[in-house]
Amino acid sequence: MGDNSVYPSKGGEGLPEPPFDGAGIEILDTTLRDGAQGEGITFSVQDKLAVVRALDDLGVTWIEAGNPGSNPKDAEFFSLAGKLHLARSRLCAFGPTRKPGTAASQDGQIRSLLEAATEAVTIFGKSWDLHVAEVLRVSPEENLAMIAETVALLKAEGRRVFYDAEHFFDGWKANAGYALATVRTALEAGADAVVLCDTNGGSFPEDIARGAAAVMAAIKAVIGDGPFQGGSGSPQGWSVGGADGTAAEGGGRYGNSPPSSLLPSVILGIHTHDDMGLAIANALAAVRAGCRHVQGTLVGFGERCGNTSLAALIPSLEFKLGLRCLPAGKPALLAETTRRVAEITNITVPGAMPYVGSSAFSHKGGMHTDAVLKVRRSFEHIDPALVGNNRHLLLSEVGGRAAVAERAKKIDPSFTKDHPVTAAVAEKLKALEAEGWAFEGADASFELLVRRELGRHTGRAEERPLFTILAYRVVSEHPTGETIACSHAWVKVLVEGQEEIAAAEGNGPVNALDCALRRALARFYPELERVRLSDYKVRVIDGVSATAAKVRVLIESTDAVNTWSTLGVSEDIIDASRAALVDSIEYKLIADKEALKR
Amino acid sequence: MGDNSVYPSKGGEGLPEPPFDGAGIEILDTTLRDGAQGEGITFSVQDKLAVVRALDDLGVTWIEAGNPGSNPKDAEFFSLAGKLHLARSRLCAFGPTRKPGTAASQDGQIRSLLEAATEAVTIFGKSWDLHVAEVLRVSPEENLAMIAETVALLKAEGRRVFYDAEHFFDGWKANAGYALATVRTALEAGADAVVLCDTNGGSFPEDIARGAAAVMAAIKAVIGDGPFQGGSGSPQGWSVGGADGTAAEGGGRYGNSPPSSLLPSVILGIHTHDDMGLAIANALAAVRAGCRHVQGTLVGFGERCGNTSLAALIPSLEFKLGLRCLPAGKPALLAETTRRVAEITNITVPGAMPYVGSSAFSHKGGMHTDAVLKVRRSFEHIDPALVGNNRHLLLSEVGGRAAVAERAKKIDPSFTKDHPVTAAVAEKLKALEAEGWAFEGADASFELLVRRELGRHTGRAEERPLFTILAYRVVSEHPTGETIACSHAWVKVLVEGQEEIAAAEGNGPVNALDCALRRALARFYPELERVRLSDYKVRVIDGVSATAAKVRVLIESTDAVNTWSTLGVSEDIIDASRAALVDSIEYKLIADKEALKR
Repeated sequence: MGDNSVYPSKGGEGLPEPPFDGAGIEILDTTLRDGAQGEGITFSVQDKLAVVRALDDLGVTWIEAGNPGSNPKDAEFFSLAGKLHLARSRLCAFGPTRKPGTAASQDGQIRSLLEAATEAVTIFGKSWDLHVAEVLRVSPEENLAMIAETVALLKAEGRRVFYDAEHFFDGWKANAGYALATVRTALEAGADAVVLCDTNGGSFPEDIARGAAAVMAAIKAVIGDGPFQGGSGSPQGWSVGGADGTAAEGGGRYGNSPPSSLLPSVILGIHTHDDMGLAIANALAAVRAGCRHVQGTLVGFGERCGNTSLAALIPSLEFKLGLRCLPAGKPALLAETTRRVAEITNITVPGAMPYVGSSAFSHKGGMHTDAVLKVRRSFEHIDPALVGNNRHLLLSEVGGRAAVAERAKKIDPSFTKDHPVTAAVAEKLKALEAEGWAFEGADASFELLVRRELGRHTGRAEERPLFTILAYRVVSEHPTGETIACSHAWVKVLVEGQEEIAAAEGNGPVNALDCALRRALARFYPELERVRLSDYKVRVIDGVSATAAKVRVLIESTDAVNTWSTLGVSEDIIDASRAALVDSIEYKLIADKEALKR
Repeated sequence: MGDNSVYPSKGGEGLPEPPFDGAGIEILDTTLRDGAQGEGITFSVQDKLAVVRALDDLGVTWIEAGNPGSNPKDAEFFSLAGKLHLARSRLCAFGPTRKPGTAASQDGQIRSLLEAATEAVTIFGKSWDLHVAEVLRVSPEENLAMIAETVALLKAEGRRVFYDAEHFFDGWKANAGYALATVRTALEAGADAVVLCDTNGGSFPEDIARGAAAVMAAIKAVIGDGPFQGGSGSPQGWSVGGADGTAAEGGGRYGNSPPSSLLPSVILGIHTHDDMGLAIANALAAVRAGCRHVQGTLVGFGERCGNTSLAALIPSLEFKLGLRCLPAGKPALLAETTRRVAEITNITVPGAMPYVGSSAFSHKGGMHTDAVLKVRRSFEHIDPALVGNNRHLLLSEVGGRAAVAERAKKIDPSFTKDHPVTAAVAEKLKALEAEGWAFEGADASFELLVRRELGRHTGRAEERPLFTILAYRVVSEHPTGETIACSHAWVKVLVEGQEEIAAAEGNGPVNALDCALRRALARFYPELERVRLSDYKVRVIDGVSATAAKVRVLIESTDAVNTWSTLGVSEDIIDASRAALVDSIEYKLIADKEALKR
């Protein structure tokens, strides 16, 4: 569907070419490891398996799925994950270098890493002398030995080894020679990739570019133009360069010519955090400097401010810089996969998330809508279809009709912009929006609106309601002498000519109404048992008259498989909630019927 | 309080010095204009005034507050805003260049801009030939005339004029000569600043750096080293440079030496969007290239993926690059002000937001916590106290106490951090916040909390409540056979030993309760007649259990002279509203008494 020709295809004019020729980027997703360090994020073993399947469908190269040595749940997960038949992705376990003063082969955490039986293992070690001296509290030499022996053991066991150089950029600023020595040590021990980490997220893109360039220059100086042999120069050679940052210039004994590219056998990687809002820019700076392995989490959550969001980064790499990250066609799954992973994690994809957020291609201002309809790239930097997202034209009548037709196609594929119902729905939509309804966040209510109009025009079954509320009464009270308030409700419904009445108590009036309504309907529709409300939002539409103003209630419901959103608008918060609850239940009943037909 | 010495102070080693000497950055916040274009964002006039007050407390240089020509509500706002006594910030109105084929003085939108009577006006115009030809559909010459005449008219009327070069970077890639000509035209017409806009958010930091450098070189070529005179070279001179981007290198007739700095009288600005997650990186790239005026929105919301978040950008400029953006000490208000503006907007500050998010300095991993306790900077790139944020593992007993003391001084100037009540309030606050109360947006409720604690310790009159609700009952119902729902309530109160009961109907249950409560109290406190609720917001605190979850109700009240905010938290929305209503009335009664004393 993408009319891509109207957008610039890839690589802006005047941009430097990346220093590699069409080679792709290796993507490592660490949602299940660094992502799980985010505040409020927890995964069950089943959640983890579901995330692995989603990422495999998307086709990321590596899935870093946990730290089996620190977490028994992760060990259980790896034993189950080994039985998944993944199409494209490979699993990776994560753990630290061996403990000080212990043989790597005797270290329990390293044994757990081997028992996870993954194709790859990420080992993190210290590159910042501050951490070596004051956190680990070992000598600089012992730290290098810990790196060397851990990497060597895992290589001997046949693993692909990624070495995460923790705090590399802070370490390189503090003591460039030592930071470079840790990296060289890992490479000499056989690491397949060295990943430069901005662990604290405090680096600028300029720092990243210089740090990565310094590593490239150092590697090149050691390995020359032949394949990397290792062993040249003792690890103690870290005094070259120094704390003044001169090593950053590729000077000193690393030679004066700037680094061009790494050997194919040694991959340099990048791992960035968003503490200054620069995670994506920093990953891009590293890629421009030659890094070919990028770590992040799909949605972007992780420790503190989160990791690089891969969903927000990959489209820039693929479509702007022409660097392949995913199998052909897979970037079109980015929006959906991001929502899927967020859903499993029980969080919401931020509407404003680059590329994949629901607002990423929303045009609100009349002038913008008008311009986008004339020339799409006038207010869109990329075709939303490339990442599986959609344009949302908010309001405007013309935009409305196109939007109506687009969504109505889900119900009836023959639907077009010129269908008579389209105009009727667009008209209705405009009238409702003028009254304060906003369907942006309530797809299910919108679908019901279209179905009702369709029914009105075509005489389909949807015209007859599945149930009707004949009456309800909700009471919230604080009786004399009581210490707490309470709420209760009764509801009378009519279904297929039969009346039913039910009552319930609740935590608040809306909960009471919800419980009573579903209790009354349960005799006719037992499937409603599985439905639960997962979110409830209220907004006053007109801020001026406050409690006498209209309120918009948005409800999100789930039956464990699907999630849908409905809304209600009224001056009465209870009545607005009633409308949104009715839509939610009706949508569920219709969706179940449709599924049976297929 | 900050033990800053353990963190790197400012400017990382190896970073290039910015091309200006200690000069600060002019911050323009456009929360109320571009921010209001964000999906789901709407401001009432009262909201807008509250945001202006918050931004003025923070001390941003400019507040771009609306488009008076496109929106009658904005025109009303500007007439009220003119009466605010702002301490540091200045207001700015926003609008387009004159309509094609119309004299600027006859253009209604431009008249509205002048009627807004702001010190500054931002005018946006087209720099991309695509927009000129296919969206505006005017000749390139007419577009330049529109820019020149609009800027000149506003200058003649004594306004400071910021020229927003919309789509500058896309335009510069497509036709560098024309894009530069639009900028030059604005400067020649007297614009005080030219703001380069990445309107679609599709540019990389490299594009920004080159585009900004090209503008600097072009300006320098025209103005030489003397003060800018304007008039040299006809606007038609846009064919210099060209579409191949060579102008970017500062070559051609612009001379070969790279630009160094702008004249003090001409300020270059930057306005970036986050469609690739690069808004902050792009703003930083522009600042490094010499831009001294930065536009964004405090929280970061805005069109599509949002604008540069100023709260996330300013700390990097201030503390990492040593560039002043706010008055001394004010960066410490960033976290609080961001929450305050978000609260007014009825959105939540993302926990992972750089610097100011609640998770920005949260340490979850045991290793991280351990390391942070040993050496703070081991896992923190900056001292959280600098931006008014807190580390999460230690919870802020000290920080909380300082905040309590500061606000309590309003009630009793003798209040200090070491006052015994401070500790009691901080303790209470901590307990309430753990239950979901959030006082940032509810100053009046916070003041009442302090007064109650003071009363408990000092035996003051505040200890005895001015009124008590003995019982209430709120009914929302839709009786059989009726077509609409209705709500009614009764409330029984106790005042000075006397009981009173009153009932009322309302538009919804909260309105009914509000009316009944004030009717019952009117006999004792006739001054409550003048109080009305000006806003009402509801937020679910725990999104998982939805209608059974706790809700936080925030109420804003006004008596035409003052406006105050109160909150209530409960599982029952009616009971939470009752708590917020009671605080609102109590605050009003106390404030009136205090006023009589003075």
